[in-house]
Amino acid sequence: MEKRIFQRIGLVGAGLIGGSIAAALARRIADAALIVHDASPGNAAYVAERHPGGSVGGITDMAGCDAIFVATPIAAIPSQVEALLALEGEAVIIDTGSAKAEIVAAIAASGVDTACFVPGHPLAGGISTGPGHSTPDILTARPFVLTPSEATAPEALATAHTLLETLGARVVEMEAAAHDRLLARGSHLPHLIAFALAEFAEEDVRDLLPASFRGIATFAASDPEMWADIFRANREGLAEALETFKKRLDLIAAMADEPTPGSLLETLETAKARIDALENDA
Amino acid sequence: MEKRIFQRIGLVGAGLIGGSIAAALARRIADAALIVHDASPGNAAYVAERHPGGSVGGITDMAGCDAIFVATPIAAIPSQVEALLALEGEAVIIDTGSAKAEIVAAIAASGVDTACFVPGHPLAGGISTGPGHSTPDILTARPFVLTPSEATAPEALATAHTLLETLGARVVEMEAAAHDRLLARGSHLPHLIAFALAEFAEEDVRDLLPASFRGIATFAASDPEMWADIFRANREGLAEALETFKKRLDLIAAMADEPTPGSLLETLETAKARIDALENDA
Repeated sequence: MEKRIFQRIGLVGAGLIGGSIAAALARRIADAALIVHDASPGNAAYVAERHPGGSVGGITDMAGCDAIFVATPIAAIPSQVEALLALEGEAVIIDTGSAKAEIVAAIAASGVDTACFVPGHPLAGGISTGPGHSTPDILTARPFVLTPSEATAPEALATAHTLLETLGARVVEMEAAAHDRLLARGSHLPHLIAFALAEFAEEDVRDLLPASFRGIATFAASDPEMWADIFRANREGLAEALETFKKRLDLIAAMADEPTPGSLLETLETAKARIDALENDA
Repeated sequence: MEKRIFQRIGLVGAGLIGGSIAAALARRIADAALIVHDASPGNAAYVAERHPGGSVGGITDMAGCDAIFVATPIAAIPSQVEALLALEGEAVIIDTGSAKAEIVAAIAASGVDTACFVPGHPLAGGISTGPGHSTPDILTARPFVLTPSEATAPEALATAHTLLETLGARVVEMEAAAHDRLLARGSHLPHLIAFALAEFAEEDVRDLLPASFRGIATFAASDPEMWADIFRANREGLAEALETFKKRLDLIAAMADEPTPGSLLETLETAKARIDALENDA
C-alpha cells in the first residue's frame, strides 16, 4: 500500500468526537492543515485553536482536502456527506455516526457517487459531551469500525485505514447491519435501560438508592438530544435487542419462581462467567 | 432513652457484611466481647481474630449477649434467628437480609416469640463478597433499614437504633413491604438487568463492547448464590418492578418509532434530570 501523506484534513462537527479527532491529529500529524466547521462557531474555533495548523472554515473551504471527518449529530450526517462528496477533488470522507445502515441508505438514496465515502464509527466517548472533554486518548487503541459498502472505492478504504491507524485507532471492518446489531446490544440498549430505570429515581427514595442502581442509571445522564437521534436512527436494531433482552429478563424472573434454585443458579453462574471473562480481557 | 452499654455481642455469618459489622464494632465498641459463628470455621476465625475481644463460638455460646447480628445468606436467616430467639436472655437480634417480608413471615410462622427480633438491612455492600473485603466504612453514613413488625418490642427496637447509630449507620425505619419494593427497584432489578445483559457478551464481540455495556454488566460479576437467594426471596417485588420497567422500555422504544422526536426527547430529558439530581445529591 502506498504510504499516503496527509497535507490537508477537514473536520465537520466539533463536539467530543470531532474535538478528540482533532487532538489526535495535532499529536500524530501536526504538520497537516486542519479546517474545522461546526454549526456552533464557538465550538469550531475552540477545536481549531488547539491544532497547530487549525483554522475555521465552511464546507466549500474543504475542497482539496485529503480526508474529511464528519462528526456531527446523526441527523445531520447525510446532508453534510452529500455536500462534501459534491466538492471538487478526491477527499476521502469518514463519518462517525453510531447507526450505520440508515446513514448509508440515506446517502445512497440521494444519488451522489459514494465511492469516496467510508462509513465509520469509533467505539469511544462517554457520558460527557462537547469539545471541552476532548482528548486524543478517546481514540487510542479503541476500535474504529468501518462499514464499507459495495460502492466504496478500495483506495478510499485503504486511505481511511492508514489515516485512522496513524491516529492510534484499531480499525475493524464489518457490515453496516452487523455494526448496528452490535451497537444496539452493546450501547443503545444499555442506554435505553438507563433512561428507563431513571423513572424509579423518585425524590423520596433518592438517598436510599444503592450503588447498583446508581452505576446503571448514570448512563441516563448522557445527552438526550444525541440519544434521541441514535434511538431513532437504529430503531430496528434497538427493537430487536430489546425483544431478546426482555425474554431473557422474563426467563430469569420465572426461574426465581421455581421450587428449587438449580436452574436459576446455573443461569446466574453462566452470566457471571461471561462478565468475568469480559473484565479479564480488558 | 436509657444509654445502653453493650458488653457482649454475637455475630452469625462472617461474610462481607458480618465482617464489616465486626470491623465497625472493633472501631466503635472495642471493649465489648464478640462471639463469631459461621458455617465456614475459617471465615469465623478470620473475623474473630480482627476484633480485640473476638472469639469463635457456637449459637449456644451466644446466650447472655446484649445483641446478635445475623448476616448469613438469606435462606439460612429464619432458622438461625429462631435458634437465637430460643436462647436464654434478652438479646436483641438484628438480621441483615436483603428481602424482609419473606424472612419476617417465615420466622412468625415458626411460632417463636419475636419480640426481640428487629428485621434489618444495611444498604451497603458491592460486587465483592467474603470477609476479606470487610471494612467498617461499608456501614458508615449508609442507610441501615429496620422493618419492625407489630410483634417487635419497642425496647428491642430502641436498642437496635442505639447500637447501629453507635456503629455509624444512618437508621431508617419502614414497612417490610416498602423495603422490598424499594430494593426490588433499586437493587434486585438492576442486578437482574446485569445478569440478563450478560447474554450479549459473546466471545466474538467481547473486545468491541462499549463502556456503557461494561458499566452495567459488571454487576453480573456478583456472587450467583447470593443473588439466586435474593431473587427467590423477593420474587414478588422483583416481578412487579420488572413489569413496570418493561412497560417503560417499550414506551421509550415506541417513541423512537414516531415520525417526530418531540416526545422521545422530552422523556429522555426528564430521565436525565432525575439522574442529574440523584448524582448532585450524592
